[in-house]
Amino acid sequence: MATFSVKAFGTPARDADLKLMTVDRRETTPQDVEIDILYCGVCHSDLHTARNDWGGTKYPAVPGHEIVGRVTKVGAAVSKFKVGDLAAVGCMVDSCGTCESCQQDLEQYCKNGFTGTYNGKDRHSGTQTFGGYSEKVVVDERFVLKVPENLDLAAVAPLLCAGITTWSPLRHWNVREGSKVAVVGLGGLGHMAIKLAKGLGAEVTLFSRTESKTEDAKLLGADHVVISTKEEQMQAVRGKFDVIIDTVPYAHDLNPYTATLGINGTLVLVGYLGPLEPSLHTVPMIMGRKSVAGSLIGGIAETQELLDFCGKHNIVSDIELIKMQDINEAYERMLKSDVRYRFVVDMASLKA
Amino acid sequence: MATFSVKAFGTPARDADLKLMTVDRRETTPQDVEIDILYCGVCHSDLHTARNDWGGTKYPAVPGHEIVGRVTKVGAAVSKFKVGDLAAVGCMVDSCGTCESCQQDLEQYCKNGFTGTYNGKDRHSGTQTFGGYSEKVVVDERFVLKVPENLDLAAVAPLLCAGITTWSPLRHWNVREGSKVAVVGLGGLGHMAIKLAKGLGAEVTLFSRTESKTEDAKLLGADHVVISTKEEQMQAVRGKFDVIIDTVPYAHDLNPYTATLGINGTLVLVGYLGPLEPSLHTVPMIMGRKSVAGSLIGGIAETQELLDFCGKHNIVSDIELIKMQDINEAYERMLKSDVRYRFVVDMASLKA
Ligand SMILES: [Zn+2]
Ligand SMILES: [Zn+2]
Ligand SMILES: [Zn+2]
Ligand SMILES: [Zn+2]
Repeated sequence: MATFSVKAFGTPARDADLKLMTVDRRETTPQDVEIDILYCGVCHSDLHTARNDWGGTKYPAVPGHEIVGRVTKVGAAVSKFKVGDLAAVGCMVDSCGTCESCQQDLEQYCKNGFTGTYNGKDRHSGTQTFGGYSEKVVVDERFVLKVPENLDLAAVAPLLCAGITTWSPLRHWNVREGSKVAVVGLGGLGHMAIKLAKGLGAEVTLFSRTESKTEDAKLLGADHVVISTKEEQMQAVRGKFDVIIDTVPYAHDLNPYTATLGINGTLVLVGYLGPLEPSLHTVPMIMGRKSVAGSLIGGIAETQELLDFCGKHNIVSDIELIKMQDINEAYERMLKSDVRYRFVVDMASLKA
Repeated sequence: MATFSVKAFGTPARDADLKLMTVDRRETTPQDVEIDILYCGVCHSDLHTARNDWGGTKYPAVPGHEIVGRVTKVGAAVSKFKVGDLAAVGCMVDSCGTCESCQQDLEQYCKNGFTGTYNGKDRHSGTQTFGGYSEKVVVDERFVLKVPENLDLAAVAPLLCAGITTWSPLRHWNVREGSKVAVVGLGGLGHMAIKLAKGLGAEVTLFSRTESKTEDAKLLGADHVVISTKEEQMQAVRGKFDVIIDTVPYAHDLNPYTATLGINGTLVLVGYLGPLEPSLHTVPMIMGRKSVAGSLIGGIAETQELLDFCGKHNIVSDIELIKMQDINEAYERMLKSDVRYRFVVDMASLKA
């Protein structure tokens, strides 16, 4: 199919730095929206894909799935967007549309596999998808979100992955006014979980291993900070929480946290893919009908709901704006958790 | 407080057989119901308590918490029962009544600890509770259940523990007409899970390690039997189930089962207390918003609901009726899973 070239930042191999390159985009089909990318958030998945940490990366790879921009072209059949509108794209650009999951607005769990915004296989052309570290992106309007006009656009970008990844479980497990929510880990996901749970009216606690994050957590809206290495603080919150959003991206002991769930409480893993080690113990689960669950990003309708909610409640991410040329250094800093709390690329730097 | 003596079968020490003994019951308080015990089911917990397998057993110990009988005396304030009524008692005989859990009819999760039918501490007298391997029991009417008149009384007894332990998660996780339910393990709990899920209108699958249980499972109502050691059979049910009731009482690999849960599916552990080994893997949980949960018996209102449901649907346990004097041999057979599917003691044998 017809294509056009765009400037992008990507990597030709797993051990190479990201650099300027050119990639092809499909020309807008009747259902497509072409978006001039203004900002793109930097997610841990970007780094892991660039370096093939999870296997399966095809090169060249262009990461980026927290995309905010402005519509520059629309296909003839597009009804939701017109040229000049703000628009956003998250982790998915397509799905089968017909399976049970897709029919329930759960495209993230598409039985036939959703199309990733990068390193996916374009359902139109069969070619590889390239992410938001680029000038423009062309996406089926079903996967394009509307962006509230009142928010700082750069700080909106992380809502498209870090935001929806925490919003979806908060909503699915029915967090509302008065709910008691805890968050494990204060990074890109954790800081959004605090803001969003607070926005929903919950009483929010951050679990942290050190005192150093207490002040920041409270500025973000946390009501309490519990130092997880202090036994008496952990004892004081035994049986307290309705929902725990666990954003930690590596193997860690869940048992101290399940002990802090109340009857019918759920601990939701959103950051760690792997075996639970040390072993999860069933006694607290059985004795309190507690659950340990997983959750992946969120559906498109739910992402729109999040953006609308953030517009209404004036919630955005805390970000550090960087130039595209500084992405490799940003990755190194991200690995050391040296960012409060999300890097966002100002795409003007790529176009300059 | 005033007491009276009853004949019972119990054990004086962890390594002793059960034998005839005499224990004291409190005289009926104004809130109490005195029940002449006709049948008492034999639960794995009875054996583990008798042998102090979990620690904490006080001796002498009199097990038995699947009790069915007839009311012989009622206190002045009792309103639900009169002399001559059928009555049943399960795993609990009391709870604080005031905590958040008790207020929600979740006495099994009483924050102050429910009073076990045996090896508990009587909230009235402060003395040890003795179970249903005895002539009579005296219980606060709040913890006494009504028994439908149309059922085989001996076969009703196991509903009080094996029945409610599987009913509670089926109801809590909303099993209904058309739900897809799987059961892991075909023993006392598993055979009730099949019957009850089927009674609720679910499509029911038994996971079994061998073909030998196929015929029995189908007689019990299972629609399908999947041999868990056959890879192609496991593949064929990937992503299928809404709820899995896992009744296996020892450590086992949950990962083959979580793979068979559908989006939003839940695997509920009701039989195993301990660490999950091999480790539970988070990938299938995150990729399908699946949960692993625990569940403990059920509340009193829920137990009454179960008994009423069983009366209406004519559901009872499959049992082997034994004499009280044969309990030690029954324990040995139970350890070898040599029972279809629950021993029940005919208490006439104790009284004779
Ligand atoms: Zn991401
Ligand atoms: Zn689909
Ligand atoms: Zn039992
Ligand atoms: Zn209570």
